[in-house]
Amino acid sequence: KKQYRIAVIPGDGIGKEVMPEGLRVLEAAAKKHGVALHFDHFDFSSWDYYEKHGQMMPDDWKEKIGKHDAIYFGAVGWPAKIPDHVSLWGSLIKFRREFDQYVNLRPVRLMPGVPSPLAGRKPGDIDFWVVRENTEGEYSSVGGRMFPDTDREFVTQQTVMTRTGVDRILKFAFELAQSRPKKHLTSATKSNGISITMPYWDERVEAMAKKYPGVKWDKYHIDILTANFVLHPDWFDVVVGSNLFGDILSDLGPACTGTIGIAPSGNINPEGDFPSVFEPVHGSAPDIAGQGIANPIGAIWSGAMMLEHLGEKEAGKSIVEAIERTLAERTLRTKDLGGNADTTACGKAVAEMV
Amino acid sequence: KKQYRIAVIPGDGIGKEVMPEGLRVLEAAAKKHGVALHFDHFDFSSWDYYEKHGQMMPDDWKEKIGKHDAIYFGAVGWPAKIPDHVSLWGSLIKFRREFDQYVNLRPVRLMPGVPSPLAGRKPGDIDFWVVRENTEGEYSSVGGRMFPDTDREFVTQQTVMTRTGVDRILKFAFELAQSRPKKHLTSATKSNGISITMPYWDERVEAMAKKYPGVKWDKYHIDILTANFVLHPDWFDVVVGSNLFGDILSDLGPACTGTIGIAPSGNINPEGDFPSVFEPVHGSAPDIAGQGIANPIGAIWSGAMMLEHLGEKEAGKSIVEAIERTLAERTLRTKDLGGNADTTACGKAVAEMV
Ligand SMILES: CC(C)[C@H](C(=O)O)[C@@H](O)C(=O)O
Ligand SMILES: CC(C)[C@H](C(=O)O)[C@@H](O)C(=O)O
Repeated sequence: KKQYRIAVIPGDGIGKEVMPEGLRVLEAAAKKHGVALHFDHFDFSSWDYYEKHGQMMPDDWKEKIGKHDAIYFGAVGWPAKIPDHVSLWGSLIKFRREFDQYVNLRPVRLMPGVPSPLAGRKPGDIDFWVVRENTEGEYSSVGGRMFPDTDREFVTQQTVMTRTGVDRILKFAFELAQSRPKKHLTSATKSNGISITMPYWDERVEAMAKKYPGVKWDKYHIDILTANFVLHPDWFDVVVGSNLFGDILSDLGPACTGTIGIAPSGNINPEGDFPSVFEPVHGSAPDIAGQGIANPIGAIWSGAMMLEHLGEKEAGKSIVEAIERTLAERTLRTKDLGGNADTTACGKAVAEMV
Repeated sequence: KKQYRIAVIPGDGIGKEVMPEGLRVLEAAAKKHGVALHFDHFDFSSWDYYEKHGQMMPDDWKEKIGKHDAIYFGAVGWPAKIPDHVSLWGSLIKFRREFDQYVNLRPVRLMPGVPSPLAGRKPGDIDFWVVRENTEGEYSSVGGRMFPDTDREFVTQQTVMTRTGVDRILKFAFELAQSRPKKHLTSATKSNGISITMPYWDERVEAMAKKYPGVKWDKYHIDILTANFVLHPDWFDVVVGSNLFGDILSDLGPACTGTIGIAPSGNINPEGDFPSVFEPVHGSAPDIAGQGIANPIGAIWSGAMMLEHLGEKEAGKSIVEAIERTLAERTLRTKDLGGNADTTACGKAVAEMV
């Protein structure tokens, strides 16, 4: 029987409410599929912890969670209490950088029971992955300000793309495309306007494509690509983009399927040198926290992604199918999807269907 | 009787087919509203010109068109024949930079007769402007490559934001918001991830907002903002963004209203030190060029924006209304909108309704 140690970090706001449901479903799936999950709980990466300690995480956070097989994360950030650059850069972005989670992976899938904002699209019509570079690119901290507080004031910030960084995300994306029936990869670029880094990105895509002759690939400038997410979401299979472009596409994609509130994500170190983080796309949602009405599907679906990442494909798949069956029943959905279940009732429903 | 000199540059592909219709409608509106338009025609900024002269424009292009009251432009670019960095950077982007057209302005409006890809939205529901910074930001040419062809290879490119550049686009956007009934401005940012330039952008927005107490404003990170274009397009009135963010939003917005093929744009130097360029958003569309089926509405609508920019509000408005009446009739629409009119028939219909 395979055994995995999971670090559980609920974080802030509704993170604390959806995680118990995620754990409930993970336990049900583990039991059914003969997988042993051992959970260690941590209270850091939260406002409570920050209030007590003046920092988001303990100094030895890497020792505490660096040896786990994966990290199961709720939500972080509470702008009214802690500025984003403290809360996000002190936890989530630290994980991405220091655990070298260079892949940010998100499914874009039209699910039953979730009304699509796009006219005439039905479940099955939209089903693709966004693969985002997660460690470099536009999110550098290189740059600065000159002539402050004068009319000549200016700021600069560099986008940095390394061959290592670009090639490894492209490799991941091409392999993912190759593993899917359609074997189709779309690259997000903007080489007609961003004249140095983006042509480099294109160049590396072309070089990598040679190694995957079975994969059909194309590229679109990011402006028209966002338009095509709305106009032709059925065109896509695997979409790969830089840190910024991937960030945009992996919010826009779920929006096109009406599912920002239930979308999952993985921050993945494919080599397994460090643990990967799995978390719902929704944030801590202070406005609805504490009411027991948060939709737990994003956390549950993230748990499924975690199992798949650990190699437990069957267990992961059984959760995704249970989610689909749950969403199809109005009474089992939470309010945001027109149902009347609360967080716990929805979580229990998925756990029972697993 | 006011008199204006317009430089007309049809450019490439369907640019050559839609411009005559744009001119036809401009002439009709000018006649009706007692405006005198004088057109000078130029053949540069096209593949034909490039083939003959090895460059996109004559050396004295600035003398040739720099004194006109406005430039009415068709389309440029034919990737199969000229690389984008030659065709676009040799014309369109040169105009933006050297004529200091620091505002890129595009309406996002759901028009009658144009099916919206968004479920349940009707004409009147979506009506806002995207204001894009058009000269600096992410489209710098500052950067380079190090350690070429080795594993250590990397490229960098700077985003550059100057106080002059940021403040003047914000001023334009706030003034536009103030002139509209809703008086609402939305700023596109990404200060939680892009940690130097974007917080600076936010800082200047806050400073500028103090000068426009009558304008309600808010800001969204670009990722969730693109999502909200799809989920809540009715939230927006004036949206302002950097060169890249504005570029993305001003393709995504028209896509949400189903109108990429008919959207107009202005590249504007508000002070009038240099001529502004008005052009349809669609490109040269080599695939349908020469068939007489191109939709001329983008060019015609751009003509309306040009008249408004010149101060001829009534004449501009009469064209927009004529467009709406034309689009409402299936038989007057072009094929791409389910009609059966060709380019000329559609243009004539608008001209008659002006
Ligand atoms: C052609 C390209 C350089 C241009 C841009 O990105 O500015 C285009 O997308 C536009 O929006 O006018
Ligand atoms: C919180 C923020 C820094 C983050 C990002 O932009 O990476 C978020 O939008 C995400 O996608 O995880």
